Amino acid sequence: MKTMNELLVHFVRDMYYAERQILKALPKMARAAQAEELKQALTEHREQTEHHVERLQQVFEALGERARGVTCEAIVGLIGEGEEIVQATEPGPVRDAGLIGCAQAVEHYEIARYGMLLAWAKACGAKEAVGPLEQTLAEEKKADALLNELATRRVNPQATQRAA
Amino acid sequence: MKTMNELLVHFVRDMYYAERQILKALPKMARAAQAEELKQALTEHREQTEHHVERLQQVFEALGERARGVTCEAIVGLIGEGEEIVQATEPGPVRDAGLIGCAQAVEHYEIARYGMLLAWAKACGAKEAVGPLEQTLAEEKKADALLNELATRRVNPQATQRAA
Repeated sequence: MKTMNELLVHFVRDMYYAERQILKALPKMARAAQAEELKQALTEHREQTEHHVERLQQVFEALGERARGVTCEAIVGLIGEGEEIVQATEPGPVRDAGLIGCAQAVEHYEIARYGMLLAWAKACGAKEAVGPLEQTLAEEKKADALLNELATRRVNPQATQRAA
Repeated sequence: MKTMNELLVHFVRDMYYAERQILKALPKMARAAQAEELKQALTEHREQTEHHVERLQQVFEALGERARGVTCEAIVGLIGEGEEIVQATEPGPVRDAGLIGCAQAVEHYEIARYGMLLAWAKACGAKEAVGPLEQTLAEEKKADALLNELATRRVNPQATQRAA
């Protein structure tokens, strides 16, 4: 890769792969969760993720590229951590706390990546890519804040009560 | 894992492994970088990371556990992305932009993890773990903001000028 444009396209592909992996992982996480609010948050985020995939297709178009993914080892590892937690716990608030933690790590990965893609799209003058990236970035931040609130208000206190 | 305390200890081990991997990766990233400011930022963050490792040792102590790591696939994938960028680029501003992006993904992973550990330590009443976790979380956020500023002010504009 010699130009910023090539770098941008590479990481849009990386994110396209990541979003589609997340799309597959979220229903499994929702099934493994116990708290109704958490199931709902994960299910709603899955619906949002479909829009994130569509917006990346718009970004590909803005860059004059065909939509395709490249394997992203980071997301494989991040999703794997969630699966590990499910295997190592029984259904209940302790597992829910772990699931939220793993989902937030995924959110933060996406926040970092979309923030970077947005800065690069601006620097490259890829004006039509800016809007979709901004929109998704805002949704990832909101999803992270929602999980945070759910953990602090409900899941963590329940999980520690159970141990007492 | 049945209790929040067990979950907390597991992820402190996960983070202990992660921080020590980061400690090894940062000097390689600093060597691969071209911009003097970026080399310096990565080198200074390596020094900070030594303190993060020490603080995790304090957290282990607060939890009555011996300090040890467990393999964290997520950080392996995140660091691997930085290595891929180095292999796929020549030294210069485009590589620097990619390195910053990968370093920010690592920062965000740490921000998510330390935020989670902090919330869990509070929920578990592990009071002596709270201070060190808060301190490191603040430093990770600051490191991310510094990289952001460096990318926007200097590296991204240089990387796109080069292509023009």
